[in-house]
Amino acid sequence: MSKPSIPQGTRDFSPQEVRKRQYIFDTLRQIFELCGFQPLETPAMENLTTLTGKYGEEGDRLIFKVLNNGLHEKKDGDKEKLAAEWDKMLSKPYSSPIVTERALRYDLTIPFARYVVMHQNDLAFPFRRYQMQPVWRADRPQKGRYREFWQCDADVVGSTSLINEAELLYIYQAAFKKLQVPVTIKINSRKLLAALAELCGMPEKMMDITIALDKLDKIGWIGVAKELQERGISDDGIWQIEKVINVKGTNAEKLVAFADMMQHSESGMAGINELSKTLEYYREIVSADKEMISGIAIDISLARGLNYYTGVIVEVVCAHPDVKMGSIGGGGRYDDLTGLFGLKGLSGVGVSFGIDRIYDVMDELKVFPAQLTTGSTALIINFGGENEIYALHILQHLRNAGIAVEIYPDVAKFDKQMKYANKRGFAYVLLPGDEEREKNMISIKDFNTGEQKMQSVEMCIKLLSVSK
Amino acid sequence: MSKPSIPQGTRDFSPQEVRKRQYIFDTLRQIFELCGFQPLETPAMENLTTLTGKYGEEGDRLIFKVLNNGLHEKKDGDKEKLAAEWDKMLSKPYSSPIVTERALRYDLTIPFARYVVMHQNDLAFPFRRYQMQPVWRADRPQKGRYREFWQCDADVVGSTSLINEAELLYIYQAAFKKLQVPVTIKINSRKLLAALAELCGMPEKMMDITIALDKLDKIGWIGVAKELQERGISDDGIWQIEKVINVKGTNAEKLVAFADMMQHSESGMAGINELSKTLEYYREIVSADKEMISGIAIDISLARGLNYYTGVIVEVVCAHPDVKMGSIGGGGRYDDLTGLFGLKGLSGVGVSFGIDRIYDVMDELKVFPAQLTTGSTALIINFGGENEIYALHILQHLRNAGIAVEIYPDVAKFDKQMKYANKRGFAYVLLPGDEEREKNMISIKDFNTGEQKMQSVEMCIKLLSVSK
Repeated sequence: MSKPSIPQGTRDFSPQEVRKRQYIFDTLRQIFELCGFQPLETPAMENLTTLTGKYGEEGDRLIFKVLNNGLHEKKDGDKEKLAAEWDKMLSKPYSSPIVTERALRYDLTIPFARYVVMHQNDLAFPFRRYQMQPVWRADRPQKGRYREFWQCDADVVGSTSLINEAELLYIYQAAFKKLQVPVTIKINSRKLLAALAELCGMPEKMMDITIALDKLDKIGWIGVAKELQERGISDDGIWQIEKVINVKGTNAEKLVAFADMMQHSESGMAGINELSKTLEYYREIVSADKEMISGIAIDISLARGLNYYTGVIVEVVCAHPDVKMGSIGGGGRYDDLTGLFGLKGLSGVGVSFGIDRIYDVMDELKVFPAQLTTGSTALIINFGGENEIYALHILQHLRNAGIAVEIYPDVAKFDKQMKYANKRGFAYVLLPGDEEREKNMISIKDFNTGEQKMQSVEMCIKLLSVSK
Repeated sequence: MSKPSIPQGTRDFSPQEVRKRQYIFDTLRQIFELCGFQPLETPAMENLTTLTGKYGEEGDRLIFKVLNNGLHEKKDGDKEKLAAEWDKMLSKPYSSPIVTERALRYDLTIPFARYVVMHQNDLAFPFRRYQMQPVWRADRPQKGRYREFWQCDADVVGSTSLINEAELLYIYQAAFKKLQVPVTIKINSRKLLAALAELCGMPEKMMDITIALDKLDKIGWIGVAKELQERGISDDGIWQIEKVINVKGTNAEKLVAFADMMQHSESGMAGINELSKTLEYYREIVSADKEMISGIAIDISLARGLNYYTGVIVEVVCAHPDVKMGSIGGGGRYDDLTGLFGLKGLSGVGVSFGIDRIYDVMDELKVFPAQLTTGSTALIINFGGENEIYALHILQHLRNAGIAVEIYPDVAKFDKQMKYANKRGFAYVLLPGDEEREKNMISIKDFNTGEQKMQSVEMCIKLLSVSK
């Protein structure tokens, strides 16, 4: 028998990991629900036709396709077709519906759009939904990149109000505050990027400028300038861009400076207005709370992908100096997502949380609540016979008081039971022996201090209630 | 563009459905954690070799296999092999690893066994785990049977103590009490079924007797007797079986009667002892609480599948007279599950919850908490201008008090906003107009009574806190 293993790029989550991940999910869910976002779940498998052609050629390559069942039970004629289709699949990027009609979800965005279109007559718009589910991609696995990973998205569709953008900023800030992860939220508008291209006198070069600027963090201005040149931006254009990205100051100061530079660009003024209004709404939502306002910074080099977004865009990075990690969240305004499935003109705005990276950051910052580690607070040692029965009564008393506690089920040697307690990492061990049973009390051993003390069951409940 | 749809046998879960399902999952999670069970999550995809050969021929047919990626990018020699393997797959039940090396999880049991074997050196035994994840089967979809459905399992491996059986009974009772689903838990031992075959003088016929008896609920004794005859049980044997299944009374009375009938069967006496000890432990755990004890009934016709279980077996059915539904949970003791992956002699016992059926029963009994329906408690109407800003302040006040509330993001016509509120089913609508803003108050419209009243924000918080 070969040693069992799991597919490359997938993970088992141990009890500790599940609890910590659950803590993140629960925290986000609470905030989403508080803000009127509604949960949605879609199936792991979608029709392959729902997914193909939505993620570009590279994306299509990474979709996990599910083989149709019962192939060998087909009729001879069908088998001939299956063989021919297989031949075609081996020769080019193509998927035959008689070979594979289903595929695993590649993201949560397309299933969401598909859902909205299917249920457009039942839904109340604006529709705010959140969704936290795994997605699958046949990417080459590497550190921090998995073939099964979780996405967590919150979107509002059917409203163009910038209150939505402001509410999503609030959700980000509230969530990361609750999770104890210090963050900077970069904010920009795709309209300013368009205006930048206009400033260079090359509106058709917006994508080139965006792609180059996106690398500012990584390669610095010299590198970006070189790439801009290679992409055919004139020297004057590059100089215009440099002036804009060199604008420093508060968000308000930046907006004033941009307005000065872009006063002749319709797109630029629309972008400035959009950012200014979003930040104003946000300020009102948080009642000008300084802690909630600080950490939101206009960054004109922020690009966020290429074809998707049309208005405000945001990106979240961890602001802790010791943490080296890319973005842990991002999103923005898009138009016409549901147009892909025939429902035109539904504007939307959304953000996503990078669950795996947030987990890693929280682990590094040690901000997960301690009790997530063990689960149960205490182990009750099983001395057998009458003491076993007494132990079961103690067990029930504690559980009725809401204290998570286990009994060692077998009457094993004391050492073996203590070894188990140690390996599991319990804070306390309870020892219901003869004396304890006769006195109707219980001895508690504190695993940190090594101290042991006989107490009433009521005192024991009090002690464990505090420490859980 | 064709109308979007989802694969047959899969489901989208609407906000209301997700919340209700989440309520079930959260309730179960709480009880598992209270009882020291630890969460585990395994990947959706397993290596195909991990799954095949574990579920019988019929099971293997129903496994969803995932196509390997990058087929058309292979070298010519590999493509020839791929074509040959495909040919083989079309001619017989066979899966080539170069065509499909991964498959979707078929249940949670095999992945659990695989996990335990992989982590045997790190785990503290006895290992108690719970797992709540979807599984996939290419079954023919029909009412109540899906191709993607959720399983929820709790198991203890590495302990033979019957305290485990008793704890799992407690988990069932505590869970269904919390979920407000009245249940009967049938309990039996596979050893008694073996003894029944011995009573007939045909120990080798245990499976035949089990299969026939399993149908008692459906076809009655006459039907069972007929099937027993067809399966080669002698008339005397059938009469012996009839005597045993006709034993009525309390659990204690049944055990006495069985002991009398099976006194010469080692297996029978072991089964009786097992049931008696399990019920005794359970009685101690629940401190002889009558409500918790009632509803657990020994049922010697309970069979629970064929090859898997070796000791105590249980099955849960809804006890409400109006609910017609098969079992909503079941489980039992098994030996050597991990033997499949090379780790011998690890006894285990587990139960599972039928999430989809429990959901249906709870819906029918109307026992889901009412607030799961809408999510947010109130909608704040957006009158625009200064009133919009005032509305944002109200919004924040309420959220800070933990009240889930939404603002209509756009300055739309009043009728449109009220129509939205109605469709979403809010209990209250808040109306921050000129007068309210000037007086620093808020009008609340109760959607049930139609009443509208202007109040202080503090009073509004009090009112909504009670009703949420």
